[in-house]
Amino acid sequence: MALVRGSARSVAQQVVAARWLLPVWDETHANEPLWLEDHALVLEGDRIAAVLPREEAWKRYPSAERVCLSEHALLPGLINAHTHAAMSLFRGLGDDQALDTWLRSVIWPLERELVDEHFVRDGSMLAVAELLRSGCTTLNDMYWYPEVTAQVCREAGMRAVLGMVVVDFPSRYGSGPEEYFQKASRLTQIIAEGTLKDSPENPHREIPLMESSYAPHATYSVSEEILREVGKRAMDEGRRVHIHMHETAAEVKASQTLDRGVLVCHRSEFAGAPLDNLERLGLLAANWTLVHMVHVTDAHIELVRRRGASVVHCPASNLKLGSGVFPLTKMLDARINVALGTDSAASNNRLDMWAEMRLAALLAKGSTGRSDCLTAYQVLRMATIQGARALGLDHLLGSLEPGKAADFIAVRVADGLSTMPVHDVCSALVYGAGPDQVTDVWIGARRVVHDGVLQTISQAKLVERIRHWHQRIRTLGSRRGEDGSYAATTRHASRN
Amino acid sequence: MALVRGSARSVAQQVVAARWLLPVWDETHANEPLWLEDHALVLEGDRIAAVLPREEAWKRYPSAERVCLSEHALLPGLINAHTHAAMSLFRGLGDDQALDTWLRSVIWPLERELVDEHFVRDGSMLAVAELLRSGCTTLNDMYWYPEVTAQVCREAGMRAVLGMVVVDFPSRYGSGPEEYFQKASRLTQIIAEGTLKDSPENPHREIPLMESSYAPHATYSVSEEILREVGKRAMDEGRRVHIHMHETAAEVKASQTLDRGVLVCHRSEFAGAPLDNLERLGLLAANWTLVHMVHVTDAHIELVRRRGASVVHCPASNLKLGSGVFPLTKMLDARINVALGTDSAASNNRLDMWAEMRLAALLAKGSTGRSDCLTAYQVLRMATIQGARALGLDHLLGSLEPGKAADFIAVRVADGLSTMPVHDVCSALVYGAGPDQVTDVWIGARRVVHDGVLQTISQAKLVERIRHWHQRIRTLGSRRGEDGSYAATTRHASRN
Repeated sequence: MALVRGSARSVAQQVVAARWLLPVWDETHANEPLWLEDHALVLEGDRIAAVLPREEAWKRYPSAERVCLSEHALLPGLINAHTHAAMSLFRGLGDDQALDTWLRSVIWPLERELVDEHFVRDGSMLAVAELLRSGCTTLNDMYWYPEVTAQVCREAGMRAVLGMVVVDFPSRYGSGPEEYFQKASRLTQIIAEGTLKDSPENPHREIPLMESSYAPHATYSVSEEILREVGKRAMDEGRRVHIHMHETAAEVKASQTLDRGVLVCHRSEFAGAPLDNLERLGLLAANWTLVHMVHVTDAHIELVRRRGASVVHCPASNLKLGSGVFPLTKMLDARINVALGTDSAASNNRLDMWAEMRLAALLAKGSTGRSDCLTAYQVLRMATIQGARALGLDHLLGSLEPGKAADFIAVRVADGLSTMPVHDVCSALVYGAGPDQVTDVWIGARRVVHDGVLQTISQAKLVERIRHWHQRIRTLGSRRGEDGSYAATTRHASRN
Repeated sequence: MALVRGSARSVAQQVVAARWLLPVWDETHANEPLWLEDHALVLEGDRIAAVLPREEAWKRYPSAERVCLSEHALLPGLINAHTHAAMSLFRGLGDDQALDTWLRSVIWPLERELVDEHFVRDGSMLAVAELLRSGCTTLNDMYWYPEVTAQVCREAGMRAVLGMVVVDFPSRYGSGPEEYFQKASRLTQIIAEGTLKDSPENPHREIPLMESSYAPHATYSVSEEILREVGKRAMDEGRRVHIHMHETAAEVKASQTLDRGVLVCHRSEFAGAPLDNLERLGLLAANWTLVHMVHVTDAHIELVRRRGASVVHCPASNLKLGSGVFPLTKMLDARINVALGTDSAASNNRLDMWAEMRLAALLAKGSTGRSDCLTAYQVLRMATIQGARALGLDHLLGSLEPGKAADFIAVRVADGLSTMPVHDVCSALVYGAGPDQVTDVWIGARRVVHDGVLQTISQAKLVERIRHWHQRIRTLGSRRGEDGSYAATTRHASRN
């Protein structure tokens, strides 16, 4: 199997060969094998120039820098289509509590007390370190101070889509929608400037490392008026909209009955499911990425299919928060583009796309009672090309094909204790492999993890910074109020 | 917190200290904290002699060998309460097929072709390597040639309960029940001899490394008459019975309707659930360990509680094979002893008790819709002390208390990318940690994993042996019959 893209310019060339290569073909290659043996990726600049049999690659590119990995599989970098990176600092806080208690007495009070540029910087760096080390090359983020997360990703060489958060209420990040929109414009400008600034250090970069999207938090935290504004701006600017939808049964029910006593009731006069309301408002479109979608009817699935929106499945978070089981096979049967996300470490607690892939497959089989309802390859597609599509970046990311970004990872499977014998490399990856088997990660042809070691983040320094936050949160905890809430320590305005 | 057990003999002493220590207290310590900080285990011979504050341990035992682990948690070794170790060689074969197809055209034909002493030796060694490396110190096995698995465990220093398999039909291991019972007696003898043989090399061993149990496969593969014989022998000899029960809805339904056309219909004239039949036969008792129990009524749960039997939950296998969701919270509410198992690598595919703990917790929360239905500590108990109880070994295993076996593990959590910051070490372990964070494993005070490296198994040699099996299975695959079945290659008697 040889695919070559011609290059007019003289740029840095690398050849990376491995025992197996999983291109994650697009639909036009439906009859190709799922993996190639003893093949190589040829890289030029920040892109893939060719996929060739190993020996042919050596011959054609004699002066290229060479890497040969004999026990490994090469595959597209994993795409985490939904997370709140900075919340890594809250990992494991208040686990095993009722959802409402957890939010009201742990997460929200702590956010009001702690979230600032420093918090977002260190929390995001921890998330990016964990993601890179485990083979995730792109994240789709939604959190306060996205310009700080952008800076962390740029320094780490991590590809990211940064959500420009919009909610109705004030936060430490802004006084309300007007200011959030101002900050959104500013983020887009920073990203554009950063993309130019990248060039001197990486003269062969053609594909921007960073993108921005609109991230209205949810229909219960953003009014119709603001949602309309988001929809219009996104359409005009050619950006995507990243929003939480139908995560819990309570959200759908409260919106249908307009029960305003329930926190997650949507902010509309329309009595109906939030998704039906989006449709009524004419907002639902192919540039929307709907996260969670656990509680949906067949009609909702048909609606999403018709509008061409993408959906992000976060299986671990949905289970851990008691939200329920996402109807994965129904979504796939409807040919909806389903991506995978970890959600934040506060509700997961790992940012581990391997665990997410495995869980998505197991859960689909267990909940349908059909062990053959889904294949390992379908799940791998959700974590790669379908993730890219949910971010509007499938022309650049998500598969190993000439012309696409050189975002790929090497996973040591042939001699792994949890993967050998490798009867089927795709099954070994999805059901057997874990982050510890990812040895190398390239993003835009830059090797950001080398032999298991982070190249762009000092893990020792990171540990020191996280210790500081641990101590600070511990101190706050020791001053908790009589009701066990962290809120006793805060002087900031309440979110509710 | 100081607990010391007096020792009359002069035996080898070791002190192992760490940042956190999780003793997994028994019920009498209900008011103690879940973990101790800066404590140490004092080991004498193959047992725990004391649990002491670190400084006090250094002072009291000045001449003991010392280990100090500053970023780690010490906890009881994990107990895998149900597996078929040797089936690791089938890992990933025929994944994503319908259960019936998978069994009939992949697993069973391959078993008929391949299973012998060599297969069981190498397959078990792979399983034991994966289990040890990931912090599992005891396995409860059920497979052909258990005497070979016993030998592998003895060489590796792994603690094990070996199931003496009994089924109605002939296999490569025996011609029928009579021969299986003969082989069972022989296994018990081999284990007893081996225990004596261990002494010269480990003069301080007091606790046997190996045990045997009766393992009638299931009520659909073992007749009433043989089940009665098993029950009687087990009672007379003080052994446990390890059996698959109520794994699928099909099994229960076929037994209730006596539909003999269904493979998993129980072998009885009684039209009713297999569990009700066991009760009718007067067999159900506290020495029975019932594996799976996915499809049960409230009355079945009450029956199991009344008889004091243990239950083993295998969440990944239940999902992957499409069996369904085990009613964990109902079982725990009934105060039934529930342990955790991986099942075999053919249906999992990892032998990873971390993944099993995490999945058990997530699944319970997701299926009940209650994020507070279960705590991380309850899940850790299932993988430790409750596992020991399911094996009838809770007087020796499952918690870190003076007098018990020195079976414990060190997990590096304080600086782990998926576990820091450690706000709650128990939550960090259950929801965040994975096999790669297990640095050291002691079984009977012998350090069988040291700094992440297996001490008793050569991983390089193991890889070579597994390659041989991979090739052999690949060759068989290339000769598969027209129906895609491996059966075309076999000349052995069919199981059905």
